[in-house]
Amino acid sequence: MHARFKLPALERFIQDAMVALGFPSNDSLVIAQLMAQADMQGSDGHGIFRLAPYTKRIKAGAINRHPKIKVIKEKPAMALIDGDNAMGHLVMKYATELAIEKAKKTGIAWVGSQYSNHAGPASLYAKMALEHDLLGLYFAVGNANHLPPWGGLDMLLSTNPIAAAIPTLHETPIVLDMATTVAAYGKVKAKAQNGEMMPEGWMVDQEGKPLLDPTQSDKGFLLPIGGYKGYGLSMIVGILAGTLNGAAMGRDVIDFNKDATSVTNTGQAVVMIDPDAFGDIHEFKQQTDRLIQDIKASRKMPGVERIWLPGEQSHLKKQDNLRHGVALSPALIEQLALLAQELQIPPLATA
Amino acid sequence: MHARFKLPALERFIQDAMVALGFPSNDSLVIAQLMAQADMQGSDGHGIFRLAPYTKRIKAGAINRHPKIKVIKEKPAMALIDGDNAMGHLVMKYATELAIEKAKKTGIAWVGSQYSNHAGPASLYAKMALEHDLLGLYFAVGNANHLPPWGGLDMLLSTNPIAAAIPTLHETPIVLDMATTVAAYGKVKAKAQNGEMMPEGWMVDQEGKPLLDPTQSDKGFLLPIGGYKGYGLSMIVGILAGTLNGAAMGRDVIDFNKDATSVTNTGQAVVMIDPDAFGDIHEFKQQTDRLIQDIKASRKMPGVERIWLPGEQSHLKKQDNLRHGVALSPALIEQLALLAQELQIPPLATA
Repeated sequence: MHARFKLPALERFIQDAMVALGFPSNDSLVIAQLMAQADMQGSDGHGIFRLAPYTKRIKAGAINRHPKIKVIKEKPAMALIDGDNAMGHLVMKYATELAIEKAKKTGIAWVGSQYSNHAGPASLYAKMALEHDLLGLYFAVGNANHLPPWGGLDMLLSTNPIAAAIPTLHETPIVLDMATTVAAYGKVKAKAQNGEMMPEGWMVDQEGKPLLDPTQSDKGFLLPIGGYKGYGLSMIVGILAGTLNGAAMGRDVIDFNKDATSVTNTGQAVVMIDPDAFGDIHEFKQQTDRLIQDIKASRKMPGVERIWLPGEQSHLKKQDNLRHGVALSPALIEQLALLAQELQIPPLATA
Repeated sequence: MHARFKLPALERFIQDAMVALGFPSNDSLVIAQLMAQADMQGSDGHGIFRLAPYTKRIKAGAINRHPKIKVIKEKPAMALIDGDNAMGHLVMKYATELAIEKAKKTGIAWVGSQYSNHAGPASLYAKMALEHDLLGLYFAVGNANHLPPWGGLDMLLSTNPIAAAIPTLHETPIVLDMATTVAAYGKVKAKAQNGEMMPEGWMVDQEGKPLLDPTQSDKGFLLPIGGYKGYGLSMIVGILAGTLNGAAMGRDVIDFNKDATSVTNTGQAVVMIDPDAFGDIHEFKQQTDRLIQDIKASRKMPGVERIWLPGEQSHLKKQDNLRHGVALSPALIEQLALLAQELQIPPLATA
């Protein structure tokens, strides 16, 4: 059994680490809250799991601890943010809040970022739409290229994720968070840390044969969803989140697993849409509820117990994690204990 | 060998058909140009192939031949269009032109439709961005539900396509046009008409076993790309293009293959983005060219001759079709000959 850790303990630990690394207390709290929220919702490749690699980058001076995040291009329904090489969580919180504010006035707003960094799971930012009765979309350029063009061997593309959050009336909100590859690279890293093999279909080697050992992941590459379709989708997401924003895309993407010192110039984009501009928010939410109910009531394939909506499993996991704490692997717990020593902060408290 | 037909002949024939069906001459020309363009670019499930089923709907009075297409909701960067049950081509041309006009002022514009109809291939409208140096995105609710929720049997979702068009400097523009299912249903219908079997992976039967005979397609359903990911993506596209616009989604979608009389209330959405609002259009196009060149120069998997960009094969097919005419199957040619008799218009002229 994995030990479990409660939300306040995770937040406390991450905030302590950030403060020890030289971040202002406020920013440390924001980063800690967003990272811990990732763990709570089950995005376990994107939460406290990332603290050690972030620490390495921060100690190497590759993240700006005192950034001036600012708008460098703006029209009523759009903006481009210069993240000034801040932690991505800070940049995307800023960008998302701006998009929300704009969308309430303009019906739709699109805010992109340049000189940002890894910001955790895509759904964190799309979901910020929900409490404002907005639809949220999020696109990002992944921080390491593990995807070649279809038929190719040079890893010029990343897992470039898409997230979407749709508000509901009584049902659990629909929250999609997907890499455009069959598996996100964070899942490969988690398999490696847990000493597990990958299922067939996640990665192939240089000859196109299945690659199952996650510790050998640098000898192969990820597969896109739907073959050439996922390759195209990854490219479009990368252009929208990267190229459009003057951020890294293609060969300019820094592999943050191998290079802890170069500025990543990460690009992301968040889109907020106000259903009230298109019609009536209450009616929209009723229609969404009805769609969800219809889908849940569908007849099932043999052997299927339940039809899930995107985000529903994550929602249930969050309820459970809030009550009982998040389960972390022994390898991760050990890594965090070493990190606590290194940063001279109190160890992570169990639930 | 299939006989080949040149662009002017296709346009002439479709326009004659539309005029014979009671459409104004101008609208008939617009519909004919967009349908023929679909054939030219190789979207052969979406061009003149659709003329007979469209005719059936039009004769049944299920399409408004004298619509008042109008904006019913509007803010500077968004609009909702009531298509007044017009041919989808007319509605989406209107919507796209409005989005282009708005995006030039606001940097980004999102225009949705309700009471539209099938409008041909998604890329037709995304591509309209290119001559204006904009990025174009397009989402639509498919006109027949062939996709159940993941693990389910009730066909509550459609092939809901995504298209994106990205301008370039010297390279062929990137144009993605993809169903969120492994195969679009138009491809299934084309296989049936050509008397061919489907490859494994396109469809499964009620027990999840591969379905290969396209004439039995109503006994099974399409598979989403990337399994549960494509299911989620299809749902989000349907919500953005349908639910948000007050258009049909889920169980309200009319199967236009089986029902030629009900109003479909088709929903679509087009998004136009101006790279000049985010930076400099010339630099953006240079960066896109560089990305394309890097991708083309990638080392190749064993047996792969060439790396293709999304839209590149379609572009080459268009060049060839413009020169030599579009190849139509004998079954389709016969169907069009009968249609010409029925509508008392001159037959389709060969190249």
